[in-house]
Amino acid sequence: MIHGGDLLSYEDRFDGQLIDYSSNINPLGYPQGLEEHLSKSFSSLLAYPDINYRRLKKQIGTYLGCQEDNLVLGNGSVELIDIFISLFDRILVFTPSFYEYEARARVHGKELVFIPYKENFDIDVDKLHILRPGDLLVLGNPNNPTGLRIKEEDLLIIYKSVLDAGAFLLLDEAFYEFTSGYDSIEVFRDRDFEGVAILRASTKFFGLPGLRLGYGACSGPMARRIEEKLLPWNINSLAEAAGSYIFKDQAYIEESRAYVAGEREFILEGLEGLSSFKTFPSETNYLLIKLLAGDEDLVFDYFVERGFVIRKCSSFRGLDKSFIRIAVKDRENNKKLLEVFKNLDDELKRFL
Amino acid sequence: MIHGGDLLSYEDRFDGQLIDYSSNINPLGYPQGLEEHLSKSFSSLLAYPDINYRRLKKQIGTYLGCQEDNLVLGNGSVELIDIFISLFDRILVFTPSFYEYEARARVHGKELVFIPYKENFDIDVDKLHILRPGDLLVLGNPNNPTGLRIKEEDLLIIYKSVLDAGAFLLLDEAFYEFTSGYDSIEVFRDRDFEGVAILRASTKFFGLPGLRLGYGACSGPMARRIEEKLLPWNINSLAEAAGSYIFKDQAYIEESRAYVAGEREFILEGLEGLSSFKTFPSETNYLLIKLLAGDEDLVFDYFVERGFVIRKCSSFRGLDKSFIRIAVKDRENNKKLLEVFKNLDDELKRFL
Repeated sequence: MIHGGDLLSYEDRFDGQLIDYSSNINPLGYPQGLEEHLSKSFSSLLAYPDINYRRLKKQIGTYLGCQEDNLVLGNGSVELIDIFISLFDRILVFTPSFYEYEARARVHGKELVFIPYKENFDIDVDKLHILRPGDLLVLGNPNNPTGLRIKEEDLLIIYKSVLDAGAFLLLDEAFYEFTSGYDSIEVFRDRDFEGVAILRASTKFFGLPGLRLGYGACSGPMARRIEEKLLPWNINSLAEAAGSYIFKDQAYIEESRAYVAGEREFILEGLEGLSSFKTFPSETNYLLIKLLAGDEDLVFDYFVERGFVIRKCSSFRGLDKSFIRIAVKDRENNKKLLEVFKNLDDELKRFL
Repeated sequence: MIHGGDLLSYEDRFDGQLIDYSSNINPLGYPQGLEEHLSKSFSSLLAYPDINYRRLKKQIGTYLGCQEDNLVLGNGSVELIDIFISLFDRILVFTPSFYEYEARARVHGKELVFIPYKENFDIDVDKLHILRPGDLLVLGNPNNPTGLRIKEEDLLIIYKSVLDAGAFLLLDEAFYEFTSGYDSIEVFRDRDFEGVAILRASTKFFGLPGLRLGYGACSGPMARRIEEKLLPWNINSLAEAAGSYIFKDQAYIEESRAYVAGEREFILEGLEGLSSFKTFPSETNYLLIKLLAGDEDLVFDYFVERGFVIRKCSSFRGLDKSFIRIAVKDRENNKKLLEVFKNLDDELKRFL
């Protein structure tokens, strides 16, 4: 299991609808009016999308607070990750992190350097001395599966190291809207995005993993380099149409952020008294959990037999079988999930 | 203008809705029940598409008449063209043909060899002696913009040359369903698709350029090689959902084929008496036209001022400004278009 969300593979192991805690999507789903909006947009399928995606870029530029010239669009942000990686000589990846950084580097035959996070999953900025010209440093911000965001002061130190070395910084901010604090677009806009790109997407926060709409902000010249490599019409017409709706739904955006923060606290509190599990602070809609007894296989099986699919974490380079990741979902399911955690804890704690 | 369909760029040149004869899409549009089917599939956006697209492959396999193991899926067939090209050393392209063969070869820094079609746009099979191991020969079948299909006996000669040379044959059959005659899937299935891949798509025939659903048939081992390079979740959930509907609509498929054949003949007959234009036989839903007076710019302007966007062809390597391409659309528009051709002919023929 390299990615979450593959429920089909486990369907026969539970007599009922499996609940997916393995992929980390906004529990409120996509904005309510989106279906009606898309229904009115079906005829857009009859034509090619605008090959330059002019309107969509304008909408995303307004939403992010940057110029259209600074934007690139991808079939999911993974397409943008792929092209950025293809442009550099050596790819630096902190571990554990999203599998595709490594996977796409391998597809392009790039040299890969893995740097472990500290034990608390913060970045050890002293490790950045190895940066050299032609390097791409890829950082999840917040990082998956750890859920931690780079502190603003650390980010500026990292950025300086990258610029000083003549390298490039790729920030994967797929979970940005779940967090609070500084806005990296704002931070780097004033520096004309020199040596940096910030990737975001509709996937996680807008509840639209099926839509495949990723976008990135970078310098104008870098955007043109990326676009030279992008496939034409890489965004589906209905994804293009969705852009007219989702980014304007301010009420949904605020409600989602507050709801997820509340449910995250609810789960964290519920897990607090259980001695078999250690949680890590998260700023996002998922939690990394260290198993103090048992392992991911035992725990996965325990959950799947009770109707929940969680994410095993040993497939993340740098983690072993003692880690799992769970999503933050709605109160009803979170309660049920905590119940299972409680029962599991009763079984596990005698091994502590 | 490298691709058709870019109406946005010409909107200010006509006071009304421009009619698009520059991109060549089924004039009947997509199957009638598709909108309702998609409306019921919105919730699929909430989850990642199946990372292995198991159901979609089954549906396409049934439609094409091949095994799921022989299928690869792309975000439009252009994604598959891109990956096939990335796997080979040297790319052989007959000219004129679809621009993206050349464009994607350049993105991957591949050596390109251009071979001109004969004057009647047939393939000169004698030219294939230059094939060598590691070559990819890309052929439109039918070819864009010429509209011609490779005769079955020629295809078998070409295939033998490719195999003998240790090269690989990529057949781009985006317009396959508009044609009649042999089925290349059938031809090569019995040879286990050794050294060959056949690409098709929902774009042209199913009237769904905005959907971005391309697919290809090739050997199992080649399919695995392609999938290693494909981005995960490259097909949008609604495109995945559309697969459950469009390939089963036999009435639509037959009606589309008959309708386009009828309208193609209607346009060809209408152009026959006009002395400024020479048409080429076409088996598809578009026509290549040689201008015997004037040039593409003059003719393009003439049409756009009257509400029609046609395709200039000098951007096709191997064609000059004396060629245009038009789509085959519905009777009402085709009649209006022929009227414009007639008036234009009156103005042009005095220059003959």
